[in-house]
Amino acid sequence: MNENNADAGADRRTHLRDRLIDIAQETVAAQGLAGLKARDLAAAAGCALGAIYTAFHDLDELILRVNARTLARLEAALDAAFVDAEAEQALEAMARAYLSFARKDEPSWRALFEHRLPPGAPVPAWYADARNRLFSRLDAPLAQLLPGRDATARAALARTLFSAVHGVVALGLEEKIAETPPKLLDEQLGVLIRLLAAGLMMESARLI
Amino acid sequence: MNENNADAGADRRTHLRDRLIDIAQETVAAQGLAGLKARDLAAAAGCALGAIYTAFHDLDELILRVNARTLARLEAALDAAFVDAEAEQALEAMARAYLSFARKDEPSWRALFEHRLPPGAPVPAWYADARNRLFSRLDAPLAQLLPGRDATARAALARTLFSAVHGVVALGLEEKIAETPPKLLDEQLGVLIRLLAAGLMMESARLI
Repeated sequence: MNENNADAGADRRTHLRDRLIDIAQETVAAQGLAGLKARDLAAAAGCALGAIYTAFHDLDELILRVNARTLARLEAALDAAFVDAEAEQALEAMARAYLSFARKDEPSWRALFEHRLPPGAPVPAWYADARNRLFSRLDAPLAQLLPGRDATARAALARTLFSAVHGVVALGLEEKIAETPPKLLDEQLGVLIRLLAAGLMMESARLI
Repeated sequence: MNENNADAGADRRTHLRDRLIDIAQETVAAQGLAGLKARDLAAAAGCALGAIYTAFHDLDELILRVNARTLARLEAALDAAFVDAEAEQALEAMARAYLSFARKDEPSWRALFEHRLPPGAPVPAWYADARNRLFSRLDAPLAQLLPGRDATARAALARTLFSAVHGVVALGLEEKIAETPPKLLDEQLGVLIRLLAAGLMMESARLI
């Protein structure tokens, strides 16, 4: 195979990869992870079933590629909401943007949490990066509230706050523990942020 | 059919129901909801597949019966942890008991959140009662912290606090957003409770 042919082969593989991610993304957005079947993907992409496994290591990699795009869209939504103001307002704006994103893009958002790698399989570095970029959005308000903390402590706190907001959003949208009409969920999120922000202020004043 | 025969039939149905719930409970505890198959259940109970549907309205009812037992065990775990002391200590003790329960009984605990009724199907009253009994455990510390709130406001707040704790526990145990060794998760839960308790104290002092 000469060099031109090798390049053309690599181009075709890249093209097929992108096409499969596009189709998988649309499927997940419409039907969630449960709707994603390799056979249907291959049919929609007009390739053989086996070609999926030349383009991706396995179906998990394809799902993580779709989820990384969801993380990037979520990151953009948080950036759009980010208020360069008081830390509390910035945290509240991001929490509300998170809820809006989850409402608008529920199946894709849910896929971020439903997908599990096989036991022992490491999270690819490119996926961990996409996730960490998202959490880094909390860093500025936390640095403002708790100037004494180092970056590691802030990152741990960012994850704790994110998890708490996620819990209220996830159980509220699924109406898992009670009927939760949109207005009530908006209120619950407001209460959570108000309590956490007050706690962070007490913490920053070293009162707790 | 005379009365004795009718009684014997009802007894047999009750016996089969209990037996199926027992077997389903063991299956869920060992393999999670995904391991629950009607065919295997019938084989283990020594009954025909169709007999499951004379004992239960559908498989969802059987799963909710198993989940109601999990809720009762969780309620007992919270009661055992309940400290009749300062509200903050009581809330922290219950949050830690929740984490312990989730760790020890992970597949059964996870089944509480993984199971979804078909769209539009109402939650049976006996299941809603079991869930509400669980949340009522938060009522005493919240009444202590916020004596001015009525029962409805306290119930909404109990759900918000539970959801926040659940978010930290669920994402932490799944190591969904970062590696979360047990010690880190214990710390994260401690931080969340400290922040929320400080927020509740500010709220009770009408400072926020």
